[in-house]
Amino acid sequence: MSEKLQKLKDILGEVSDINRAASVLVWDQETYMPPGGLANRADQYSTLRRIAHSRFTADEVGGLLDDLDGEVRGLPFESDHASLIRVTRRDYDRARKLPTELVAEIARAGTMAQPVWRKARQDSDFKLFAPYLQKNVELIRRVADALGYRKRPYDALVDRYEPGLTTDQLEAIFAELKKAIVPLVSDVGRHADAVDDSVLHRGFDPDAQLAYSLEVVTKLGYDVKRGRQDISAHPMTFAFGPGDVRITTRVSRNFFNECLFGSIHESGHGMYSQGIEQNLDRTPLWGEASPGVDESQSRLWENLVGRSAAFWQYFFPSLRDRFPGPLKGVDDEGFFKAVNRAQPSLIRVEADEVTYNLHILLRFELENELLEAQLKVEDLPEAWNALVKSYLGLDVPNDREGVLQDIHWSDMSFANFPAYTLGNVIGAQLLEKVRSEVPDLDGHIARGEFGVLLDWLRLNLYRHGRKFTPGEVMERVTGRPLTTEPWVTYVRQKFGTLYGVRTAEAGS
Amino acid sequence: MSEKLQKLKDILGEVSDINRAASVLVWDQETYMPPGGLANRADQYSTLRRIAHSRFTADEVGGLLDDLDGEVRGLPFESDHASLIRVTRRDYDRARKLPTELVAEIARAGTMAQPVWRKARQDSDFKLFAPYLQKNVELIRRVADALGYRKRPYDALVDRYEPGLTTDQLEAIFAELKKAIVPLVSDVGRHADAVDDSVLHRGFDPDAQLAYSLEVVTKLGYDVKRGRQDISAHPMTFAFGPGDVRITTRVSRNFFNECLFGSIHESGHGMYSQGIEQNLDRTPLWGEASPGVDESQSRLWENLVGRSAAFWQYFFPSLRDRFPGPLKGVDDEGFFKAVNRAQPSLIRVEADEVTYNLHILLRFELENELLEAQLKVEDLPEAWNALVKSYLGLDVPNDREGVLQDIHWSDMSFANFPAYTLGNVIGAQLLEKVRSEVPDLDGHIARGEFGVLLDWLRLNLYRHGRKFTPGEVMERVTGRPLTTEPWVTYVRQKFGTLYGVRTAEAGS
Repeated sequence: MSEKLQKLKDILGEVSDINRAASVLVWDQETYMPPGGLANRADQYSTLRRIAHSRFTADEVGGLLDDLDGEVRGLPFESDHASLIRVTRRDYDRARKLPTELVAEIARAGTMAQPVWRKARQDSDFKLFAPYLQKNVELIRRVADALGYRKRPYDALVDRYEPGLTTDQLEAIFAELKKAIVPLVSDVGRHADAVDDSVLHRGFDPDAQLAYSLEVVTKLGYDVKRGRQDISAHPMTFAFGPGDVRITTRVSRNFFNECLFGSIHESGHGMYSQGIEQNLDRTPLWGEASPGVDESQSRLWENLVGRSAAFWQYFFPSLRDRFPGPLKGVDDEGFFKAVNRAQPSLIRVEADEVTYNLHILLRFELENELLEAQLKVEDLPEAWNALVKSYLGLDVPNDREGVLQDIHWSDMSFANFPAYTLGNVIGAQLLEKVRSEVPDLDGHIARGEFGVLLDWLRLNLYRHGRKFTPGEVMERVTGRPLTTEPWVTYVRQKFGTLYGVRTAEAGS
Repeated sequence: MSEKLQKLKDILGEVSDINRAASVLVWDQETYMPPGGLANRADQYSTLRRIAHSRFTADEVGGLLDDLDGEVRGLPFESDHASLIRVTRRDYDRARKLPTELVAEIARAGTMAQPVWRKARQDSDFKLFAPYLQKNVELIRRVADALGYRKRPYDALVDRYEPGLTTDQLEAIFAELKKAIVPLVSDVGRHADAVDDSVLHRGFDPDAQLAYSLEVVTKLGYDVKRGRQDISAHPMTFAFGPGDVRITTRVSRNFFNECLFGSIHESGHGMYSQGIEQNLDRTPLWGEASPGVDESQSRLWENLVGRSAAFWQYFFPSLRDRFPGPLKGVDDEGFFKAVNRAQPSLIRVEADEVTYNLHILLRFELENELLEAQLKVEDLPEAWNALVKSYLGLDVPNDREGVLQDIHWSDMSFANFPAYTLGNVIGAQLLEKVRSEVPDLDGHIARGEFGVLLDWLRLNLYRHGRKFTPGEVMERVTGRPLTTEPWVTYVRQKFGTLYGVRTAEAGS
């Protein structure tokens, strides 16, 4: 390795260390930090983010990248070194556009707004949160302006997360999905009696749920020697390095889905992180290709695997052994149906696979309107409620179950929602490819053999870390660009069958 | 505030944030980090320590201190600003002597050696730990050389922790203590039957112990809204700022003392940190005067309060309610005696108040010999065992219960042991002063009124943070220099009475 490459890697390693330490601060804040710790934590977090940004955007890094550009020319596109220079350059050019003080201010604003949002949500009091949201919207507009965009401010933010993707493309994707979802929701609604999910609410001991969920994700392939599971208000995954990737979940006695599917979802993120090649550690390549690709893995494991009939053929017997009371008289097929009950609902994280993307669509539209100042923060609840009525046919009884339900706008994760929908679409496209190469995938799953799927994902996706953009990932792994078609096919087949909708009805 | 003072405080604030974030990393490592996380953690911790050191020792800080020196001249010694410049200058001059790379190497070596020490202790295999200890000894010698010393390398390390104190002074203190302790141990040994502590081993439900210990320390004055208690192999206190000061403890079903007295000990550290004036936050003044003064508070609350007859008059009824099984037929006086049983033992952290300082003395002597290369690491176990035999009259059956028992030499805390003895001595001297101003202190304690003691300590000690050196603290608070006499008087009276030793025998 050249001296310059070593020098660059030293700096990038330090930046990675600082960002990971900052991430430990967030994990701690979400899990164990006492309430009094918030102000100190905001200082610490903001300082670390400021230092990491300032070190990464130093002229020295730009100079090294310039010098190394020639050195890696001629190396294969996917080689570690060529990828390192290419991806670091992209990150660097973008980061240079953001003033360090703005980065530090955003870190602080996000930390301080969260507890206010929590209180506001608890009391269903939007007015309490509004001034913080106002400030956050102003900050994120400054980010968009600093990054620059051709057409719409949202473009700047989307490109930051999903390099190569535009707001127009997202709108096209949502339009295709909406076209498929709306009639399916209506079909399913006419056969609502086909699925009964009352079993999920029969009362499951929380500690036993937590233990069982950890066993399940361990069986899937999440490595607990290099991770752990804790409880937090919102399930999350934290990657502090190849040896320490943690998940969190939550648990409700009266709603089974929260804990197990929360754990499986996060373990999907976790297995992705744990599968990145070790030699990319402490570089910008050690991470997921994008939030959308990352979300494809959480949702693939949660839904395409965890909510499949094959999955419950394997796991239901052990689940029934663990919870004989509430599962009395239930079989695997009935349980599979219960966890897949589809019907319009108010809360995104509890939404079924069919309606989920509508929740994202409405957030995507509102974020754009806020960012383009077509919508005032004070008018947000009304706009929210109108879209819920329009897309889901529901009246929102209060802001707690409406505009205040998500953490994202308090912790500065604007423009992050589309990742969930991208995740659904990407996951289905990837799994279609897996099935073409592993025809008996369901057989493996039904026998509790998850290695074949995990190995395929590691080999084709996980190990590469951030080497490729989402577009490059799809082309390389599936041989074609991102398309909504596999997801639409999947959801029509699955829910058409589950609800006994006639094929013609379920077809397009 | 002048612009320069503001600039200095900004830099010091950042350094404080980084060091606190590093401290969160250690807390996490001690409590929840999965085993695989170690290598990543060593990188993160070492990077943060390196950056903090490099920022603090920048020429800019020296220049600001030079400029501000004139600005604060004429201000009272104890004023915030004068103290800030004085103490920061002392820290700065010392830190400048340490190369940043040595600081980073020490951070890494400490992190990496700990798990090896843990394994070595578990297997009682000194050879496994020896090469790491060898490296650590070499590193700490480099520290002593870099800091410089007049007479002995230990001076450099002691002065770092306890400014103004020398190795000679420590030797004199230990000589005085030894002179008092040896005959007392012998007296107590002749009346060993006077105290029966079998009740402590009757089996106490661990969860109930943890809950009870948290109730006790909350009653004493530890603020759980600005703190929390977790479990770790070694009880510790972590101060991340005025709003977040955490303690850890451990719990054993078959030995009652571990959990409760571990918690009370750490809550003493915790209440000290929580009592520092808020406006010293994010400066070098936000901390304890020294490890010795800090330890005076943990040991004051643990022993002088927690192991007093008055304490158990108040707490025993609720303890008996909580543990009616094991406490059947026991009264408060019997329990008070049991938790004070004194007899030579192998493990420092389980030692009684009488013999405890002998454990420190032998470590102090061995550290000096290691540092002065009079003792080789490979010969350490033998030297350890010989001193245990000489001071405590015991044969060490294995290294687990001998030289491998303490974490300190793995995590680079050399020359930290004397703080425990200083803590005993300082604590007794402070409490003597409290008693002279609050004659009915025991009455307050027996009624569960701990506020009078806590308020006194806050007013006279805690709030000042690091403004004063240990010597200045003793002069200001007690009106005289550090002296062993109050501790010797205390321990003779208490254990003379407890064991029914005749006054003449117990006197000097």
